[in-house]
Amino acid sequence: MSSFNPEQLANPGVRQLRPYQAGKPITELERELGIKNIVKLASNENPLGISQKVKAALAEELNDLARYPDANGFYLKEKIAKKQGVEMNQITLGNGSNDVLELIARTFVNDSHEVIFSQHAFVVYPIVTQAIGATAVAVPAKQYGHDLDAMLAAISDKTRLIFIANPNNPTGTFLSAEALHDFLKQVPDNVLVVLDEAYTEFVPVAERSPSFAWVTEFPNLLVCRTFAKAYGLAGLRAGYTVSDARIADLLNRVRQPFNMNSLSLRAAEVALDDDEYLQQSVAINQAGMQQLVNFCEQRGLSYIPSYGNFLTIEVGDDAEQLYQELLQQGVIVRPVTGYQLPRHLRVSIGLPAENQAFIDAMVKLGR
Amino acid sequence: MSSFNPEQLANPGVRQLRPYQAGKPITELERELGIKNIVKLASNENPLGISQKVKAALAEELNDLARYPDANGFYLKEKIAKKQGVEMNQITLGNGSNDVLELIARTFVNDSHEVIFSQHAFVVYPIVTQAIGATAVAVPAKQYGHDLDAMLAAISDKTRLIFIANPNNPTGTFLSAEALHDFLKQVPDNVLVVLDEAYTEFVPVAERSPSFAWVTEFPNLLVCRTFAKAYGLAGLRAGYTVSDARIADLLNRVRQPFNMNSLSLRAAEVALDDDEYLQQSVAINQAGMQQLVNFCEQRGLSYIPSYGNFLTIEVGDDAEQLYQELLQQGVIVRPVTGYQLPRHLRVSIGLPAENQAFIDAMVKLGR
Repeated sequence: MSSFNPEQLANPGVRQLRPYQAGKPITELERELGIKNIVKLASNENPLGISQKVKAALAEELNDLARYPDANGFYLKEKIAKKQGVEMNQITLGNGSNDVLELIARTFVNDSHEVIFSQHAFVVYPIVTQAIGATAVAVPAKQYGHDLDAMLAAISDKTRLIFIANPNNPTGTFLSAEALHDFLKQVPDNVLVVLDEAYTEFVPVAERSPSFAWVTEFPNLLVCRTFAKAYGLAGLRAGYTVSDARIADLLNRVRQPFNMNSLSLRAAEVALDDDEYLQQSVAINQAGMQQLVNFCEQRGLSYIPSYGNFLTIEVGDDAEQLYQELLQQGVIVRPVTGYQLPRHLRVSIGLPAENQAFIDAMVKLGR
Repeated sequence: MSSFNPEQLANPGVRQLRPYQAGKPITELERELGIKNIVKLASNENPLGISQKVKAALAEELNDLARYPDANGFYLKEKIAKKQGVEMNQITLGNGSNDVLELIARTFVNDSHEVIFSQHAFVVYPIVTQAIGATAVAVPAKQYGHDLDAMLAAISDKTRLIFIANPNNPTGTFLSAEALHDFLKQVPDNVLVVLDEAYTEFVPVAERSPSFAWVTEFPNLLVCRTFAKAYGLAGLRAGYTVSDARIADLLNRVRQPFNMNSLSLRAAEVALDDDEYLQQSVAINQAGMQQLVNFCEQRGLSYIPSYGNFLTIEVGDDAEQLYQELLQQGVIVRPVTGYQLPRHLRVSIGLPAENQAFIDAMVKLGR
């Protein structure tokens, strides 16, 4: 058995795969440093904590957990359909939008295909592409954002899928509805376009794309949303995609039947109706963004103007070292070297006091 | 756009895929019939409901759900490692064992491979095989159970994976430790063996295989467990596999980083320590099994002797019609035509009154 080599048995794409690097959990840093009062601004989480309405609803659901979840997510789909003006059969539910993104790739892409995404775009796109053994086509960014013309030019006979994040993570860059619509008109309909709008709730309403309506105009378009950010349910894993009903049917064949658990189904349902929490999320984000932007301007730090709930700041060649120094100060932010941004750190918007803790630590470290 | 045909864009395996058919949810039948007091004995769920210790622990976790789960599941892995006598780096956590089964297939199997499983075995095995586009080799069953000799004989140069369910669902058949050990000794080590022990807690301790210890002897062995059955956490989605650490490393590269949510991580952790609940689960299952077996014997109905928390009963050529008639009586059981058992119905063991409701409905329907 000494010759046993599981690496050789793994699929070729998997052998080269580097796993997703999550933001450092607070508990992990606590274990390492033996300290408390850690501020985590590393994972674009909602600093408000969970909505009290969601919490109350979950407390009432705790008795029924020995039963399997509803495999069809009937009540959540019903609510999404009503809220977003789509049909229930256009919806595919995911265990977070990560699950949906992977599901789309696995349903439509194989190792003979190319998948296009932008440089500096969400790392799950290259990971799911690589896991399948498909060819990743990373198109160079333009001012940190998607270069749609270059992405169009990158389409080949082998292209099956294009990922677009709008706003983009980790750069916070944003594409206008007009630019996106122009782009969609030019993509051949045998190429699927995934529009990942995880951060859309932080964008002013007037600037958002009418993306769900576009699904009718462009049947090759899939729009992805998450409950992890503005809705504050990162810990519960809830996301979905809206698409042509025939695409949804295919996705739901591949989807694990119980991919969303009973509590995440219920939480998402209640969160969708909690407009007050959503407004508060957006307001606290706007204020915190201003706080961080002011700090950057005062200290002469460059940053990428952001439409998300995070700000990516250019700190210089020692970004990784600064990340470590901030950890020692009890502040967790996110290195983005893996996104080809080795001089930047991404800072999630927290509560005013959390943002201040980051600012104070930066000042203390001479930044 | 009228020519748009997403079916043509889907991967070949997906086009032929028939999705998993979940047990009918109680809420769905309530909507359809407009009645309450429905008895569901369709999904091998734990009739005790959730453990009160787990419930109390979850109630305390409801505040922290805006944070992402721990992507590494540190505390749950620590607990599993201690409880099962394995190393933390041998563990891969799953969003239910369905997730783990799929993960194993996606990591090691591609469309050039064959995957072996038994006729009448858990339907997730053919589904994940088909989704990947690999070739399914379903080996005819022997007395409703795995024919290990025939499965060995089915191994070819293309075989990458063998699924074994022990006890098997939906037949409840069981393979002795001796038979399994003999089998494992004969499987070449470039073929991975997945031993799915979802129902193992219902097997008398003396009869169980020392499966975790075998992982050291057979590095090509992966042992899967779930919290959905005896631990009563079906609604929370929690499972894991124990394997050679190098296999676990590969699986964890493909695993979605937040596949288990914060509440399922915590619930599984607490459930593992709740021996009292586990004993109660096993006791209520033994009693209920006897109740159903007695009924079958009294009425002259054949059944497949079962080591699980369900009994699969031969009801005759009109099994599908009987299933519908039972629904009308407010009793949900599981048709198993999809498992090539068109004359059987699978009945999950419930509380004494639930089992009696099934028995009463059967008698009322003249069975």
